[in-house]
Parts: sequence; C-alpha cells; structure tokens
Amino acid sequence: MNVAQQLIASHLVSGDPVPGAGIEVRIDQTLTQDATGTMVMLELEAMDLDRVRTEVSVQYVDHNLLQADERNAEDHRFLRSACGRFGVWYSKPGNGVSHPTHMQRFGRPGATLLGSDSHTCAAGSLGMLAIGAGGIDVAQAMAGEPFRFRMPEIWGVELTGELPSWVSAKDVILEMLRRYGVSGGVGRIVEYHGPGLASLSAMDRHVIANMGAELGATTTVFPADDAVREFLRAEGREDEFTEVVADHDATYDVSDAIDLAGLDPLVATPSSPGNVVPVREVAGTEVGQVVIGSSANPGLRDFAIAGAMVRGRQTGAAVSFDVNPTSRSILEDLTRMGVTLDLVRAGARVHQAGCLGCIGMGQAPAGGTNSLRTMPRNFPGRSGSADDAVYLCSPETAAASALSGVIVDPRDWAQQDAVSYPALGLPARHSVNRAMLEPPPADPGELQKGPNIGTLPDFDGLPDRLEVPVALKVGDDVSTDEISPAGAAALPYRSNIAKLAEFTFRPVDPEYAGRVRDLGDHAVVGGTNYGQGSSREHAAITPRYLGLRLVVARSFARIHWQNLANFGVLACEFADAADYDRIQAGDVIVVDRLHDVLRSSEGLDARVGDRTVQLRHQLSARQIDTLLAGGVIPLLRGRQ
Amino acid sequence: MNVAQQLIASHLVSGDPVPGAGIEVRIDQTLTQDATGTMVMLELEAMDLDRVRTEVSVQYVDHNLLQADERNAEDHRFLRSACGRFGVWYSKPGNGVSHPTHMQRFGRPGATLLGSDSHTCAAGSLGMLAIGAGGIDVAQAMAGEPFRFRMPEIWGVELTGELPSWVSAKDVILEMLRRYGVSGGVGRIVEYHGPGLASLSAMDRHVIANMGAELGATTTVFPADDAVREFLRAEGREDEFTEVVADHDATYDVSDAIDLAGLDPLVATPSSPGNVVPVREVAGTEVGQVVIGSSANPGLRDFAIAGAMVRGRQTGAAVSFDVNPTSRSILEDLTRMGVTLDLVRAGARVHQAGCLGCIGMGQAPAGGTNSLRTMPRNFPGRSGSADDAVYLCSPETAAASALSGVIVDPRDWAQQDAVSYPALGLPARHSVNRAMLEPPPADPGELQKGPNIGTLPDFDGLPDRLEVPVALKVGDDVSTDEISPAGAAALPYRSNIAKLAEFTFRPVDPEYAGRVRDLGDHAVVGGTNYGQGSSREHAAITPRYLGLRLVVARSFARIHWQNLANFGVLACEFADAADYDRIQAGDVIVVDRLHDVLRSSEGLDARVGDRTVQLRHQLSARQIDTLLAGGVIPLLRGRQ
Repeated sequence: MNVAQQLIASHLVSGDPVPGAGIEVRIDQTLTQDATGTMVMLELEAMDLDRVRTEVSVQYVDHNLLQADERNAEDHRFLRSACGRFGVWYSKPGNGVSHPTHMQRFGRPGATLLGSDSHTCAAGSLGMLAIGAGGIDVAQAMAGEPFRFRMPEIWGVELTGELPSWVSAKDVILEMLRRYGVSGGVGRIVEYHGPGLASLSAMDRHVIANMGAELGATTTVFPADDAVREFLRAEGREDEFTEVVADHDATYDVSDAIDLAGLDPLVATPSSPGNVVPVREVAGTEVGQVVIGSSANPGLRDFAIAGAMVRGRQTGAAVSFDVNPTSRSILEDLTRMGVTLDLVRAGARVHQAGCLGCIGMGQAPAGGTNSLRTMPRNFPGRSGSADDAVYLCSPETAAASALSGVIVDPRDWAQQDAVSYPALGLPARHSVNRAMLEPPPADPGELQKGPNIGTLPDFDGLPDRLEVPVALKVGDDVSTDEISPAGAAALPYRSNIAKLAEFTFRPVDPEYAGRVRDLGDHAVVGGTNYGQGSSREHAAITPRYLGLRLVVARSFARIHWQNLANFGVLACEFADAADYDRIQAGDVIVVDRLHDVLRSSEGLDARVGDRTVQLRHQLSARQIDTLLAGGVIPLLRGRQ
Repeated sequence: MNVAQQLIASHLVSGDPVPGAGIEVRIDQTLTQDATGTMVMLELEAMDLDRVRTEVSVQYVDHNLLQADERNAEDHRFLRSACGRFGVWYSKPGNGVSHPTHMQRFGRPGATLLGSDSHTCAAGSLGMLAIGAGGIDVAQAMAGEPFRFRMPEIWGVELTGELPSWVSAKDVILEMLRRYGVSGGVGRIVEYHGPGLASLSAMDRHVIANMGAELGATTTVFPADDAVREFLRAEGREDEFTEVVADHDATYDVSDAIDLAGLDPLVATPSSPGNVVPVREVAGTEVGQVVIGSSANPGLRDFAIAGAMVRGRQTGAAVSFDVNPTSRSILEDLTRMGVTLDLVRAGARVHQAGCLGCIGMGQAPAGGTNSLRTMPRNFPGRSGSADDAVYLCSPETAAASALSGVIVDPRDWAQQDAVSYPALGLPARHSVNRAMLEPPPADPGELQKGPNIGTLPDFDGLPDRLEVPVALKVGDDVSTDEISPAGAAALPYRSNIAKLAEFTFRPVDPEYAGRVRDLGDHAVVGGTNYGQGSSREHAAITPRYLGLRLVVARSFARIHWQNLANFGVLACEFADAADYDRIQAGDVIVVDRLHDVLRSSEGLDARVGDRTVQLRHQLSARQIDTLLAGGVIPLLRGRQ
C-alpha cells in the first residue's frame, strides 16, 4: 500500500477503499480557526454536545485579528469560553496560523486530522491524513462521528533530483498548478514519493501539501521519514515520531514525476493560482506591495532566506514590504537568529503572527498596483481591494522583487548583484513555548456570547416538490469567496447569519440578497467547479438562510458540495452539460416526488418551462437523510 | 525670560507677547499625519504652492495602517506623491508614530514646529515651541505664513526630587491631570523647570509634554539642557544641539511645583484622561487587554521596562497583551536588546510601528472588558468599541497588570513576586536608519490620486450683497459631528469633498444636502455654542461646497468659527439673542453693502421680510480679507 492507503486503512470505519466508493474514517484530531470556528462552536451548542471525543481538538485564532470594533475581540472571548465548554485547546490571537502551529505542537505521523480550513491538508507534510472540510463536518468529528467521503484516486508524484539555488518548495507546487490547473487534483489524493524527497524538509513539504488545496485535491500526503523525525526532534517531540512509508511494491492510481533540478522560479499571475508562468515571463512588472508569510510559506527558512537576501539592503521606496510571521515560536526563532532585525532594517513592516492579508484582513493593496505575495490564493478581490492584481511566488522571488521594486527572477537578481546563495544557519532545536497554548480545563465553563454572536437558525427539510425560480446564473470556477465574501466588512459577522446573509454573492451580483428576500425559495445555476476555494460553510448557510433550495451546476468543488448537503441544499449536476446554456436566470425549475426519487435509482427529471432537463446527484444515503431532515444538526441533535 | 518666552521672542513676526494679545510667530518645521495630511496636501494643491518654505516639513503615515480596502493604500500613495510635489519628507507606513520619529530625526532645540495633530506638543521635550493646529493652519505655515494665536500665560511647574522605583514620567503628567483636569491648561503653555529635571531623560519629557494636550494647554516646553544633548548624541545629531534654558531671573504667569519623590503610580479611569486616581484605588479590576505603545509612552525605556518585567513570565490567559512599537528605530533597538524576544515569549502580540489602537484603528477591546493602555486618551468609544472602559497608565503598571490579569500597583506586584527594580541597559547610541525616511526629490513629481481622492473645490469671494434663504435652523450645541459626521460610512471620503458633502448635517436633517443642491447659496441659523467638538475643517468645507454663505447663531465654538472664516463663510451673531426665535427656516435674509460694512465700524443690519435684524461679527481685518477672497486658499493663491 502507498502512504495514503495505509492511513485510510488504519482509520477505516466502514466502506471499501476503492476510488469512488463511499468510506468512513475515524478522526483523531481536529483543527478549527476563528473564521469558521465560531460557527463550529455554535453547531456543537446546537447539537447539545458535552465534551469532544477526539484525541485532540484545537481552536486557533488567526484569521481576523484586526479588532476594528468590539465584535472581533468578543468572538475571541466566545471561542475561548467554548474551548472550556467543550474541552478544546485554545490558541490565542498572536500564537500564529493554525497550520504551522498545529504542525509544530500537535501533528503526529499516522494520525488523521479534520480541519475547518481548506489548507488543513498542509499537515500531510508529517505523514498524516489531513483533510479540510466544512465546519459542520468538523463539528461531527468533534462529536465522535467518522468523516464520510468518496475514496479518492491516489496520484503518485515521483520527485527526483534536487532543487537548484534560488528555487524552493513553492516552485514545486506552482509547477503542479502550472501543469494541472486549479481542478487538476479534484477527486484525488496527491502522494509525493521518490528520491527527491530526501532534500525537502518537513516544512518544505508543508509548503507543497498546503497548496494541494489549490489543485482541488482531497489532500496531499508525504511519508513520515527521517525529515519528519528531524522536524519533531527540533520541536522537542521526537517521541511522537512513527515511520509511515509506502510499501516497497506500492502502486498509484495515477502517476507523474517532477525533476526538481529542472524547475525554474514560477509565479501565479492574477487572478488564479492556476495562472502559472516562469517569473522571467513577467519580469519588470512594477510592484507596490510584497508580502511574505501565510500557511503557503510558513517556515523558518522561508523568512530566513528573505532576511538573508535583504540584509544590509533597502526595499524599494514605493514598495510596502509586509512580513507576517506565521507562528509565535517561528517569530521567536527569527528574532533570536537576527532575521527580524534584518527585515526591519530593510524596511519591512513586521506584523503580529496570523493570516492577515492572506484572507483580506488588512494589507489591501492600492488600486492599480500589483501585489506580490508568498500566499496560496489570488482570487479576484480576496486581497480586500476591488480591482486587485495579486501574484503568488516563493520567498526568494518576493524578496528579490521587494528590493528591485519590480518582479524579478531571484537568479537574475543574484547575478546582477553578484550575490551567492546564502547559508541560513537554521537552529537544530526550535523555540518551544507551551505556555502559549491553553489546554482545556477539567471543568466545562459557560459560553460567553457578545451581542454579535447568535445561534444557528433552524432550517426545515427538503420538500417533496420544488418549484423554484433561478435567482442567479454564474459561470465556471465561482469560489466561496464570491458566494460568501470574507474581507473586513463581512468577516465580523461570521457568527451572525442574518447579518452575514446580506453579503451573499455580493462580488458576483450585489442585488442577489435583496432580490431573493422577495423570491423566497429559489435555485442557483453554476458552471464547472462551483464553490471552489475556501471551505467556509457560510457559503452554504447564508444562501440557504435566504431561501436557496437547489444548485444545479456542471460540476462542484468537493467541500462546498458537501456543505450544501450538510445544510439542506440539494446540489445536482446537469446530466447533459449543454443544458447549462439552455437555462437562464428567471426560469422556474420544477421537480416532483423528490423524496421518492432521491431514495430510489430513478432519474432526476426537472421541468424548466416546457422542457425536461435531466439532473443527477451523487448523494449518499446518509446525505439524503440529512437533506430530508433539514441538515446535519437536526439529524444529529437527537443522538448526543 | 523663561524658555517659552525665549522661543516666542526669537520667532515673533508681529504682536506684543503679553497674555491674551494676538501674535504671529514664524514656523520652522511642520508635521502632518495621514489622517489630516491628505486634506493639507489638497489645500497646498488648491493654493498652487510650488515648494514648501519651511526649514523642514514631514508627512508621516501612522494613523491608519489597517488597509481594510484599497482606499487606505491609495491615500499612502497620494501622500508620497504629494511629498514629491511639494518638497516634503515622506515617512512610510511602518516607520512609526510622528511624534517620537520627528523627535528622533528632525526635532532641534530652539525651533518652532506646527503639526496637524494635537500631540505635536510632545516636541516641547527638546526645547522646541511645538503646537498642534488645524490642517489649513499647517498648510499656511508650509506656504511660509506665520502662525497666528493669542499669547498664552506661561505656567511654570517646578519639579523637585527624583522619581521612586516603579514610578515613571507617565505618572508625572497623570498627577498634573489629577490636579487640574482636562481643561486646566487652556490658554496656557506649561513650562517644567527645577532640579527634578536632571533625572528625566528627553524621552521621559516627551511623555510629559505629549499629554499636555490632555490638559488643554497650548503646548508644553522643557529646556534644552544636558538631557537633550545626550538624546541628540544617542541619535547621532549632537551637532544640532543648542542650549535653550530659562534666564536665571525668569518668572512665570502662574506657578506650581511637584515633588517627584512623592508620586505614586496613577491611573486615569474611564472615560476621561482627567479621571485620575492612585492605581491602588482600582487594584483588582480585571483586564481583558493591556496595550503598550503610543506617543504617550514611546521611548525605548518604556518598552524595555515592560520587557524586563515580563521576562521569563507569562501574561494572563484571558489578557490580550498588545505591544505597538512607536518607531522603526526603537523597534530595531528593542530587537537588538532582546526586549522583543522577551515580550513575544511572554505572550505579546507585537505589531507594526504606528498609532493603531490609540486612535481606534484596530485593537478594539471586547464589550464588557476593561482595557489598560499606556495611551493618552480614553474618551468614550475612541478605542473602537461602543461601550468601552479604557484605563490609562504607565508601562510599569501595564506590565504588572498584564501578568496579573488584574490592575495592580507595580510596587505591590514587585513585592509579592520579590522582584527588584531592573537595570535596563539602554544603549548609549540608538539605531539610526536614514534610508527609511524619503527626502523630497529635487524635481517635483505629479500628484497620484486614486479614484477616492478629489480636489478642493474653488470657492468664490463673499459677494457685496447677500440674499439667501435659511435652509436649516438648528438648536443649541450642534457639534461638528452633526455638521460633518465621522463614522465608517463617511470617514473614507475625507479626501473627497463632493462625496463627503452628501453626509452634511445628516444626523440633524438627512434632507439638507439634497435640498440645498436646488437652493444654491443659503444660510443656516444656529443656537448657542454652534460647531462645538472636533476641530475638523470638513464641517466648514462641505456646507460651503453646498452653497452655505452665512451662519447666524447665538454664539459659536471657537475653532469652528475660525474654520468658517478660513473657508469663506460669514459667521455672525445675533445682537439681540431673542431674534433667534423670530427667524425661521425658509425666511430670506438680505444684507447689502457687505464689503463696506465689514471694513467699517458700521452695524451689520440684515433684512428678514419686513423686519431688520441686527447682527455682529468678531472678525479680524485679516479674516475679513479672507472672506472677501473666498477663503484662505484663494487669499494665499495669488501670493505663491
């Protein structure tokens, strides 16, 4: 068996792990962050859960740290109280981004991790099966339920050779995105193997695994080998190491290979992580902002290489050079190593540890200027600026460009300035500060809710007959950022569904929320890869709150598809993709005898005017139960 | 002469410097920050100014660093371009708070400084005459005009003794506020003198001078003595030192004394800097947030004492411990000294250098929690939280309380933990990084305006005959917040008069802006204390933009009265206050031969229907010139 198959087999609760079959796996660990975690805690409250039933569950506060008004800090207080209430570890604001922090303190080879953040897959770097999911899936896992999904294909990618100077892990995942685009990984687990692994540290692997989310992959796994042992040793946790490596005769459902030695510095141009070209193709492009940080380049070396490159130099006068440390312990080490000082002296604005501009919480660039970032996503508007132009790259490319004021291949910068590749002198032991993470108290406390923290609305079950107008028709690759935007205006309402609903689909159609208030029950029509991007379940909850009953699309992104079912919205695909063109906003879709049809093997025929449109669904029996109950919470509420 | 008198005498352009008399002083340096500076730059543009005529003018970007959307970064880009255009130094976002940065790099004994920030007075620490003023006043100074004000009384405060351990400069100014409250300094310059000065560093004096603004004082001055020489030496600028000390036989208009040795740690309780009590009186009060930073405690020692206190300890689990470095060079030194590391290890969220939570740009505490800050102001809601409870204190009190989770006198904390007062090991030479501050380029460039940055409208002069309908009649105590509201909706349009004008008088009469667009030239009738509150010039500019020509009121608040004249609106009082009741919205006010009448001693008679209403004004000859020209900008435009 390959590593992915081993991890699934050791946690299999039910099902046959062949590609496409429904399976259930036991979840050892969960991770939530503040943008999704408030909702998860409200879901646990709605389920009447007493204490979590996982090995370890951790709540991180990393997404919204701006505190523009009292609501933000009230969310933090609520989350801390919920950790006490349900038995969850609490990571304070400023402790860092969930993914690197979890990897440093809690990740262990061989375990499963479910997280309400799409980049949870980053923990695949430690030989874990780590999957991003909607909040309600994570809430279920916290309640002891297995995680249900279709067994993906395992996509073996053999790495050979060694990365040249000035090329780093980010360029490996950008190469995958260059080859396969943002839906190349859908329905697959990417498993890296081969001799090239030897030169990639565990944190390098985090960089690659993290942006597996941008490939659309279910997750990414690496073996737990000597590099992982070394990482855990540096974190003072070598005793938690277990070797997890592929069997000698392991095979893969799909295979590919990358010669690391042949890679160039790459950059994703606006406004998709899939628009990847060599940096040299866009060299000379002026930049107004360069940002280093995020779960896509969180490691000590990612900051250390930037620090070494800017040491004794000055970043461009017209460039805002922003540095977002990714965890408090990484900031400690950077400060001990002198990197913080080098960055500050070169002109960096060093911020508290957190996600910050990566999810548009501050750091919005000026209109008409280009922003170059080591982050994972550059969807339109995600930066917080209306007409943004965000490029994604490695720390090497970012630092060279910050110094130059224009995008530059770090090799060309090095040659021009006669700079040789620096030795980074990374410490063998990392800073560890256990006092920062608050363990769950023995006695559960009370939930502390500020006035902006609501309770979950009750949704009724799917009716037997749908007769719903198409309130909105959208194109391909609509992301959850477009369905339920983040950003400084919306994010404070993450725990307030009635208010947050006003932002639904705003980037696509600012009139949607107002219009459907009059329409009531309605449908949305989508193209391919509907609901890509962030795992936020608000993208299912707020349209459902506004009356969404049915989404018909050419295809769905996995997490959002699951979220729709979890909150009682029927998601169907066109049997004939060409029907997408035959259906328009304003058309009324009628489906009869829905309950019987869903529970049988009958075809799902919809009437649209005088035509019949064949739909199909991939719902499991359990998901159909969920839909008919009105969502997971009414379904589970009786059982806790 | 005392120091204040010497500084005024050496810069006197006209007038007799006796308390209450109008004087004009030459301005050597100016300081603007981003919240006020955008308007100042638009005013310079409207004046057709070529290059500033000061010794040095500096534009800081410190107030709004959140970048929640593109407008913020576009303001920064505009300010940088304006610095190039007009010959102003540009301090990038992240370089720090204007007051400590200016002190470090530009302040010099004996000079005058006018700044569009109320804490400009902090530079009195260097033996400067440093005054905070409205934007148009600073714009005029940049154009080479003298600053006009009434000669204040000089209030000599003799300091004796030496501060005990755990008591610091902040407690000195809190003692002043305890004694005299928030209007104790109105119409006065506070001058500290006496043997107690010897133990106060220049940065300690900054702490005391800065919060002179909270006493309502015109400014605060200290002598330029050995402590100032030592500071300039540490900054590599000893050659800019000049001794400025009071004459041996100097006298003061008012006198008082403080024995430093007798001071206790003090705290200003919510919600006024004047609510000062000993810390022990509120000991045990729970805190949810502790913030160190701001121009009220900007010095290396202010952070270093906090770092020494928290070293090896952990701040409370329920406390957000926020550290806002005040300048990049101070952050550099803190990092070199190991203080940054100590703070981070103890749980601090270390932010970029800037004002941040001090002006409610982030760091808003949760409702129902107490926030303890080393900042200068705790007015209700200033923190960004609706029902905030903000306490102001020294870094010693802040650090001890962050560790304890409750407010505690640092002496009691030290005794309980058997901590002796730490030696701070401050460096004799400070970090200096001149590359950070961008000097004005030799060739002026173009202004770079984003779509949200307008141009100041052209206003024509006051006509000789007014025949204007009363568009609005309001009651007593209407504030500038009601005339030109702040708030999240309006504030982003501070540089966009056409857009901001739509908000004019909205809290009082939401129809006003629409109505006067049809009316054109019009009048407003006010009660007593018309235009109280914030000094914002927008409360004069936006109604003038909409056609306001005349305000008749029972009485005016001083700053708004001045702003009306500055932007060409005639402000008159009723000679008979009872006439207020005889005039109604819709009445038409007619005044003839206005030019002659204003320039003579004739009475100002207005006709309202068939009645005559006697008006009066208190305008100076210069203000009348201003009105006839259409405001300060057209007045000065001819002269540049």
